Amino acid sequence: MTIPTDPETGEFHRAPNHFAARITADGRDGWPVEPGRYRLVVSRACPWASRALVVRRLLGLEHAISLAVADPIQDEKSWRFTLDPGDRDPVLGIKYLSEAYYKADPDYTGGISVPAVVDTPSGRLVTNDFPRITLDFATEWTAHHREGAPDLYPEHLRDEIDEVNRGVHTDVNAAVYEAGFATKQAAYDDAYRRLFARLDALSTRLENQRYLVGDTITEADIRLFTTLVRFDAVYHGHFKCNRNKLTEMPVLWAYARDLFQTPGFGDTVDFDHIKRHYYQVHEQINPTRIVPRGPELSLWATPHGREALGGRPFGDGTPPGPPPPTEVLPAQW
Amino acid sequence: MTIPTDPETGEFHRAPNHFAARITADGRDGWPVEPGRYRLVVSRACPWASRALVVRRLLGLEHAISLAVADPIQDEKSWRFTLDPGDRDPVLGIKYLSEAYYKADPDYTGGISVPAVVDTPSGRLVTNDFPRITLDFATEWTAHHREGAPDLYPEHLRDEIDEVNRGVHTDVNAAVYEAGFATKQAAYDDAYRRLFARLDALSTRLENQRYLVGDTITEADIRLFTTLVRFDAVYHGHFKCNRNKLTEMPVLWAYARDLFQTPGFGDTVDFDHIKRHYYQVHEQINPTRIVPRGPELSLWATPHGREALGGRPFGDGTPPGPPPPTEVLPAQW
Repeated sequence: MTIPTDPETGEFHRAPNHFAARITADGRDGWPVEPGRYRLVVSRACPWASRALVVRRLLGLEHAISLAVADPIQDEKSWRFTLDPGDRDPVLGIKYLSEAYYKADPDYTGGISVPAVVDTPSGRLVTNDFPRITLDFATEWTAHHREGAPDLYPEHLRDEIDEVNRGVHTDVNAAVYEAGFATKQAAYDDAYRRLFARLDALSTRLENQRYLVGDTITEADIRLFTTLVRFDAVYHGHFKCNRNKLTEMPVLWAYARDLFQTPGFGDTVDFDHIKRHYYQVHEQINPTRIVPRGPELSLWATPHGREALGGRPFGDGTPPGPPPPTEVLPAQW
Repeated sequence: MTIPTDPETGEFHRAPNHFAARITADGRDGWPVEPGRYRLVVSRACPWASRALVVRRLLGLEHAISLAVADPIQDEKSWRFTLDPGDRDPVLGIKYLSEAYYKADPDYTGGISVPAVVDTPSGRLVTNDFPRITLDFATEWTAHHREGAPDLYPEHLRDEIDEVNRGVHTDVNAAVYEAGFATKQAAYDDAYRRLFARLDALSTRLENQRYLVGDTITEADIRLFTTLVRFDAVYHGHFKCNRNKLTEMPVLWAYARDLFQTPGFGDTVDFDHIKRHYYQVHEQINPTRIVPRGPELSLWATPHGREALGGRPFGDGTPPGPPPPTEVLPAQW
């Protein structure tokens, strides 16, 4: 995998998403909500894709939107279905996610990213616009949410959620990559400083408040969670985000465990996929491709004590049941 | 710097030391103890050299054996005196430590390592045999020890010290390098397992006992300390020794801080040299040469509580005074 950085500044910036059509209840982009029609393609390694995994679980959309899980190790043709029999996704019948991209745009030359939503009948990619995918799951697919599904993007809180998300995106979700992929010290230093300043601010915000916005789980918590759950396993060492481990930030560590232990969060996390992906794919920063044996993962199951802060995780709703049998992960430690 | 590993197993093994002459009170190898005659060449980055720095301080040998400090960043000709005016060691008059090696053996083709003891009048290397150098400082230079110098290698404890040292060498001092330089997963896994099994055993040993052998500081403590003090700064992330940080092993962390805060230990430690050396020299494992900003170093000054275990750090002796003015290090955090 080639990591593109600015030769002048050594900074890494994620490429914009090219396919931004939206699947909506009214079908105004030509892609109407329709249970059984679309396939969500993810890697369980990828934090951007993992948001969609969590949201799909919390909302009970497993029956409406099927799931394809790519091998955590891309090859030179990017994400591939080598975990499936015959190395093909059994529903789309393709070996590489790129095939869905080229079906949507034969002239496409950009990157191949997850999450991706594919139209099953035509095999065409609909969208890889990750920030929109989860919001649309929450707001456009409401007719197919499970009973008791939470409102992850409540109308009266959207401005606040959007604002929190902007800071978390710039200084947490993206900053860990900017630290890890930097090729010049100044670019790394800048990302590191922003990251820990933001984590400190989030820690203060969460000290007496169970969730980031309001008193229930929202999209904002999901976006922070997917970076925090990878922090000690990969970002701390591999990406040099090492002022301290997550386990050394008591508020954020308790907050992250609280979410991890909530149905729909931890049951989507595959630490083996996460570790192998980061350490084996980024040869530019880990040429030996050796995967560290640490850290101790069983700590994720320890008591967090955040119930004492109150809050209503699912608002007036209820937690999701267990994942579908085909999506149950092996024991993580 | 080239890191030689076995192409078959991916294992790294340190090359033996070539120059093993001993400087003794009776001068039987042709190198008699003589104050002002020899120069100790170190890098403050190097754990093997740092043992000699600590022992020289504890025994008050600064007036008897002078000190040359190499730049923590070697170039293709290895250790160099680029920290000194004109890039030359002011006493030996050489730019590279290798010049002293070649003066001792013009046909030498092996590696250039620190610590090295050089005969100042002839400019010849006498020894780079690090495990012997510190023991000889303790046992052959006694006539020149300061008043109140401790006995770091007491006769009646030598068997026990030697035995502890063997385990610490194989499974701690050397194992961190074997983990970090491994090019195959199995070689890394083996070193990682040995390392943490040994650290767990040492932790148990030190739970109710202030020092490793007897009730005073000995050579055994010095050899463990020089690896522990580098653990979170470099071995945890750079060498993938990441089951946990030292700060997460309460007994060893308190033990390491106790020593760090003892005169003669912490005042020899230059974290800037340590971090820049490991992260910038080992391009095979850190191609970007970016130096992480973490971890938080000020924790080394926090109370350790080990005084409660008793023990007599210097036996019947006393702590050393402050380092000579030319050897005082900048503030470390």
